[in-house]
Amino acid sequence: MQRFLPAWSWLRDYDRSRFQGDGMAAVIVTIMLIPQSLAYALLAGLPPEVGLYASMLPLVGYAIFGSSNALAVGPVAVVSLMTAAAVGELAAVGTPEYRQAALVLAGLSGVMLLALGVLRLGFLASWLSHPVISGFITASGILIAASQLKHILGIPAGGHTLVEIVASLAEGIQDSNWPTLVIGVAVTAFLFWVRSRLKPFLIRLGVGVRTADSVAKAGPVVAVIATILAVDLLSLDTQGVSVVGAVPQGLPPLTLPSFDLELWRQLFVSALLISVIGFVESVSVAQTLAAKRRERIDPNRELLGLGAANVAASVSGGYPVTGGFARSVVNFDAGARTPLAGVLTAVGIGLTALLLTPLFHALPKATLAATIIVAVLSLVDLGALKRTWAYSKADFAAMAATIALVLLVGVEAGVVAGVVLSILLYLARSTRPHIAIVGQVPGTHHFRNVKRHKVMTSPSVLSVRVDESLYFANARYLEDRVYDEAVAQEGIRDVVLICAAVNGIDASALESLEALNERLKAAGVRFHLSEVKGPVMDRLKRSHFLDDLTGKVFLSQWDAMAALDPETTRAAEAGERPALSAAAL
Amino acid sequence: MQRFLPAWSWLRDYDRSRFQGDGMAAVIVTIMLIPQSLAYALLAGLPPEVGLYASMLPLVGYAIFGSSNALAVGPVAVVSLMTAAAVGELAAVGTPEYRQAALVLAGLSGVMLLALGVLRLGFLASWLSHPVISGFITASGILIAASQLKHILGIPAGGHTLVEIVASLAEGIQDSNWPTLVIGVAVTAFLFWVRSRLKPFLIRLGVGVRTADSVAKAGPVVAVIATILAVDLLSLDTQGVSVVGAVPQGLPPLTLPSFDLELWRQLFVSALLISVIGFVESVSVAQTLAAKRRERIDPNRELLGLGAANVAASVSGGYPVTGGFARSVVNFDAGARTPLAGVLTAVGIGLTALLLTPLFHALPKATLAATIIVAVLSLVDLGALKRTWAYSKADFAAMAATIALVLLVGVEAGVVAGVVLSILLYLARSTRPHIAIVGQVPGTHHFRNVKRHKVMTSPSVLSVRVDESLYFANARYLEDRVYDEAVAQEGIRDVVLICAAVNGIDASALESLEALNERLKAAGVRFHLSEVKGPVMDRLKRSHFLDDLTGKVFLSQWDAMAALDPETTRAAEAGERPALSAAAL
Repeated sequence: MQRFLPAWSWLRDYDRSRFQGDGMAAVIVTIMLIPQSLAYALLAGLPPEVGLYASMLPLVGYAIFGSSNALAVGPVAVVSLMTAAAVGELAAVGTPEYRQAALVLAGLSGVMLLALGVLRLGFLASWLSHPVISGFITASGILIAASQLKHILGIPAGGHTLVEIVASLAEGIQDSNWPTLVIGVAVTAFLFWVRSRLKPFLIRLGVGVRTADSVAKAGPVVAVIATILAVDLLSLDTQGVSVVGAVPQGLPPLTLPSFDLELWRQLFVSALLISVIGFVESVSVAQTLAAKRRERIDPNRELLGLGAANVAASVSGGYPVTGGFARSVVNFDAGARTPLAGVLTAVGIGLTALLLTPLFHALPKATLAATIIVAVLSLVDLGALKRTWAYSKADFAAMAATIALVLLVGVEAGVVAGVVLSILLYLARSTRPHIAIVGQVPGTHHFRNVKRHKVMTSPSVLSVRVDESLYFANARYLEDRVYDEAVAQEGIRDVVLICAAVNGIDASALESLEALNERLKAAGVRFHLSEVKGPVMDRLKRSHFLDDLTGKVFLSQWDAMAALDPETTRAAEAGERPALSAAAL
Repeated sequence: MQRFLPAWSWLRDYDRSRFQGDGMAAVIVTIMLIPQSLAYALLAGLPPEVGLYASMLPLVGYAIFGSSNALAVGPVAVVSLMTAAAVGELAAVGTPEYRQAALVLAGLSGVMLLALGVLRLGFLASWLSHPVISGFITASGILIAASQLKHILGIPAGGHTLVEIVASLAEGIQDSNWPTLVIGVAVTAFLFWVRSRLKPFLIRLGVGVRTADSVAKAGPVVAVIATILAVDLLSLDTQGVSVVGAVPQGLPPLTLPSFDLELWRQLFVSALLISVIGFVESVSVAQTLAAKRRERIDPNRELLGLGAANVAASVSGGYPVTGGFARSVVNFDAGARTPLAGVLTAVGIGLTALLLTPLFHALPKATLAATIIVAVLSLVDLGALKRTWAYSKADFAAMAATIALVLLVGVEAGVVAGVVLSILLYLARSTRPHIAIVGQVPGTHHFRNVKRHKVMTSPSVLSVRVDESLYFANARYLEDRVYDEAVAQEGIRDVVLICAAVNGIDASALESLEALNERLKAAGVRFHLSEVKGPVMDRLKRSHFLDDLTGKVFLSQWDAMAALDPETTRAAEAGERPALSAAAL
């Protein structure tokens, strides 16, 4: 049963107490989701009802296949921005082609996620390193906030990069509509106040932390109601305040994404990036929440759940969806116990679409823009730049490049550049591995770096430790370094390569070891290995290297030294004062 | 002095004995180079005299800046093939645009090599792994040999991939020209015979090995003279035998590569590939020959030397050049002692261009094609596929992909795919690192994999060793694996991560270690590290990780076990019979 209906795992034990938790969570998430779904559709360049449609069937799709009990799926800010960027390349906002492309994007993304899930390829998402994701989210937050300022100012403006957006805003700012600006600034200020002051105030009044939090999360709904009333009572829409306008009443239409292959091809890369970023974000929320209840989520089932959600979005007039961070935390805190909470939320949004849409007619776009700005600015974490700089310059470079490219070129360019740069920097590090000449710590069998410790070295044996697997990109460097060290010291008769940190030797590195063996042989120096790991040794035995090796393979470095220079080794073991060796000079 | 004129290093000690060696080598290399330079120009789709031009000034350029005393620079088969592929995309064979593009390619390649040399970026060539180079050379050899069959058959044929070439040959084969075929087959057979039979025969007659080798290397010259005479005497050119025709007499013209930026842009990638492949091939020959005389070459000076050679080719009517393998070995064996041998070879080719070109009029193209075929087939090493398969499946995959793509798509696609695949496979290996649960070897302080050795494990402490640096692509996998192992065993209170083979921890891996620490804490398990390397520890100290760690960092795994489970550790040290532990079950 479980195999054909993954939801069976929670359906079979379903009971009243779970229903109470799920129901309460669904009510709160629905209230939170109504303004969000309208706002994110606006951000994606789509009509507001598309946001509602994307918050119904997709939630049911996720509930059937997903594994998280707390994840709340639907339209989210970053994916909406990416949708606008991808679809905006192919069609103009407001055209049927634009909506059609959004459906294809959701369908394609759904199929990709399902395929990754079936093939169990979820691990591929780990190529998005933490600094790249963090940089991407921060830059997206800034870009989204900037793109919404036009609604606050009540001016037409466009642009996909920060420079374009700012230039476009600067051009139109003198035409700002004052009533719109008042609403926008007031709502923004109110929402920031709710978030930063109301919650602590309620807690001081003795309200529970969770209740205070839920009240704070309802702030946008209060702003929506208040500004609708203001527009209606003061007829602000006749004074230039842009409103949402007529929202069709009713359930989502049945849609079929176009099977125009050219369109699928054009949206392929965008769909892949949306899928991967949506998945990474969603899984990290789901994992964090699951850990709090000692539950586990299954990344491959998450892929299936999100894939089903996106396919559902594409057949019900929606656009790409994923698990939302703030929304899932609310869902979890409000007591959601199973994915049924998502189904109940879908019912709530369905009732809204059936009954409440006429009320949204007078909703100012500035209110929605303010909701988005406050939500996304909480994603911006510039402190992460400083922390990453302190920890690792390479990670900082990947993060900074991602931020700069997202802001100045575009979201997709930013992610791709970040991933490519992370990989190149990782490879660059392994190209110049840490190589240490080691000596024996007096009185022990241990060998340590001559530069970091007081150790004894042999006048005739050079011991070199490489702290990296040997492969094509570092093989020749190592070959030259070891050879140079060996011939630079007078009297060296043996070289021992300590392989304790060598986790692999590829065919190129094998060639280099063979070449090194030959070159040292020509120089009258024998070449030995020590502490070779089992799997590496198994592989070396399948080549001719061990037959040609002028020296031996020793199990431990101590064995090597005891065999090659017993005198120095015994002296060191006895803890005698280290003689001034060639290496120490 | 050395700084402004690198050649000063050998010029200042120059003497008569060196001149004798260099002079003799120059004579032999000149004889070998005449047919080769004509043939490779033909392969590159260029008039024969271009091959001679590319064998003069470039050799002087290399002699001034290069560091190898034996490397013989000039047109080579693989680079000629790559030139034909790159230039053939932009212009038709025989047009002035084609020659102009070849000049630009040489100039661009020269500038790139000089830039890499000045920036000391020679190490970047190590990204071409050994299996990729080996596969590339083998496939190029097959492709070149196939492309020359049309000259042996005396038919017009074309195509850039093996399939195209074979299809084109199959289409024209019934129009084969019999006199051409006779010459082509006879020369091919003669050259194979010289190579495989004449040399052993001469040696048996008591001729020295080196002399026999030099005689065998002169085979192509004999074939050239014999077939020129045959064509002249039998007027074969009137019977359809295609000949080289009029070759302009005289020294190279002074040329200036076009500064059409669009042309430079179009040839950029091709020039880069030609530069890198030419450099890699050249350096490996130079290194091998230098090692035989206990000399060293300087890869960055090699870049400068090859860069100067290519710039020289572009201003003297040539096309891209690099160090040739067979030619350099002949140069070395004939006694070349300094780069002056190259200058003298250039003089020899110059005299040929001034005096002998009228003689080449009646030279059949079939003779040159046979010379190329015999030369390149010696580069084909299909046995390498088998050896690589035995050693490493990943390396085999990179090699096979390179061969398949060179043959079926093109030389550039093959190299790029090989490099990309090598990198991806290397990354894929590090994505799933080897993780071992370890126990104490009874009677020792050593800890080994429970799956490979009889060891004692503690019922309350799980010791895990990771054989890879921790970074974004494997961090989450490791986090899940260690967590799952820890919660799978009843009674585990401590987890120790052994970091002896961890050469780096990036920001993503740090996040995962922090998450693992939190998840284990929630499960009531403390998290410890042991045997952390100096540089890794230095970095961890710059983060908050060590403050939040629920456990400790131990210097050695034995210290960790002695502190966390003294009873089991002492029992193991005393060599008591291992109890059946959870891990061993």
